[in-house]
Amino acid sequence: METKRPLILITNDDGHAAKGLHKLTALMRTLGDVAVISTDEVMSAKSHSCTIHEKLRVRLIREEAGFVEFRCNGTPVDCVKLAYQKLLPRNPDLVVSGINHGTNAASTVVYSGTIGAVVEACMNGLNAIGFSLDSLSPEADFGHTDTAVLQITKRVLKKGLPQGVCLNVNFPKRSDEPLKGIQLCRQANCRWVEYFKEQFDENGEQYYDLSGELVSDDIVSGTDLFAIRSNHVAVVPTCYDWTAHACLETMKDFETISI
Amino acid sequence: METKRPLILITNDDGHAAKGLHKLTALMRTLGDVAVISTDEVMSAKSHSCTIHEKLRVRLIREEAGFVEFRCNGTPVDCVKLAYQKLLPRNPDLVVSGINHGTNAASTVVYSGTIGAVVEACMNGLNAIGFSLDSLSPEADFGHTDTAVLQITKRVLKKGLPQGVCLNVNFPKRSDEPLKGIQLCRQANCRWVEYFKEQFDENGEQYYDLSGELVSDDIVSGTDLFAIRSNHVAVVPTCYDWTAHACLETMKDFETISI
Repeated sequence: METKRPLILITNDDGHAAKGLHKLTALMRTLGDVAVISTDEVMSAKSHSCTIHEKLRVRLIREEAGFVEFRCNGTPVDCVKLAYQKLLPRNPDLVVSGINHGTNAASTVVYSGTIGAVVEACMNGLNAIGFSLDSLSPEADFGHTDTAVLQITKRVLKKGLPQGVCLNVNFPKRSDEPLKGIQLCRQANCRWVEYFKEQFDENGEQYYDLSGELVSDDIVSGTDLFAIRSNHVAVVPTCYDWTAHACLETMKDFETISI
Repeated sequence: METKRPLILITNDDGHAAKGLHKLTALMRTLGDVAVISTDEVMSAKSHSCTIHEKLRVRLIREEAGFVEFRCNGTPVDCVKLAYQKLLPRNPDLVVSGINHGTNAASTVVYSGTIGAVVEACMNGLNAIGFSLDSLSPEADFGHTDTAVLQITKRVLKKGLPQGVCLNVNFPKRSDEPLKGIQLCRQANCRWVEYFKEQFDENGEQYYDLSGELVSDDIVSGTDLFAIRSNHVAVVPTCYDWTAHACLETMKDFETISI
């Protein structure tokens, strides 16, 4: 008797034309039925934002046996909401996002549209994984990611993830050496140091161009940044409970503040 | 000898005209020198998004002794980045965001532009507090929040917050009863159940309107939702480490996956 193929929902934040999306789609089609819902525009750094003030539009792009593709003018989070609540015949067995062009390791996760989609799925009880590559190049080489993407996905399809937990998977840029293996990591602490370059437009009006670099004093064993730098695949079990639980004891004196 | 007044940076996600922003500004001006940088547009549900593909513009609106106001076309996170990196003469002693029209309690924190700004400040080593009221009304009554906003702010100005921790403070809607006090809470688990209403524009093209309601099966003692419903001020110590730390042991088998 044939086992039912799993239904896998794919989205990303680099838009429908991204090489990383096509790579992930090709890989997932070997594992199950696939629905892709990507964004019209590049949605990098859109975090967990969703569309509440503009008109949200969706177009069916392609449909064939075991495959359907939509495109949406919203954010990655909108894509996930729309897909599982309106567009798909049933809840997907898994939501995957990526493969992102650019790392989503360490604290930069807070800016990520790729991981926004993953967290949204997780909040709704769906298994979800975000895949990212430490290269911003549109022509980035994803060839070294195939086996790990497939094996991690198979593991999650088979055993599921704990409730309230999704995966943030980051790959190092391709090097001459093969990947050394998977490391289960905590998110390293880091921040962007930005440069706001003052520019002037054609009307002489000032604006700012944002650029910057990632700085971290936390690239130590056990972190995702350390894993990537040593050519490992970094897997961070990720949650949306932002409570600093240790402080629930140490800051108890707040309850004595007279209001 | 006169003590130097603290410098307090204020932003929000409801835009420059919001009543909650004006309330927070009036309160903070009794405690220190104040810089307001708000957004041109309403930025609700913009989460931690920042502007990397559009031109970021800032205008000086008003400047007087101990007070300066800017307005920006970006997101609340852009406001914080711009303010402390470009616009202010020195790092603010405190960043406050709000008072938001609408709750940012429980897991809805992930969507919040108000809290996006607070987390951004926290990532850069600044003390930061987000204030929100459980009422979406533009004319909401903030009269019951004054003492708690002032006292919590004074406490943070005096003693600071632990590194990597900011505060997400949520007020119940004003009722006939006075507030019962402050509760230090964990973030309750919840999710939005959305309705995507199919609409048609003037050209007959379909679009979706997003609306929805918050559902939670976690309104239990110790959570922010429980505190608010019992007319307490909910204070959640909040962090940007999203690692599901307990899973670093339980999911160790991921490291045995052959890639």
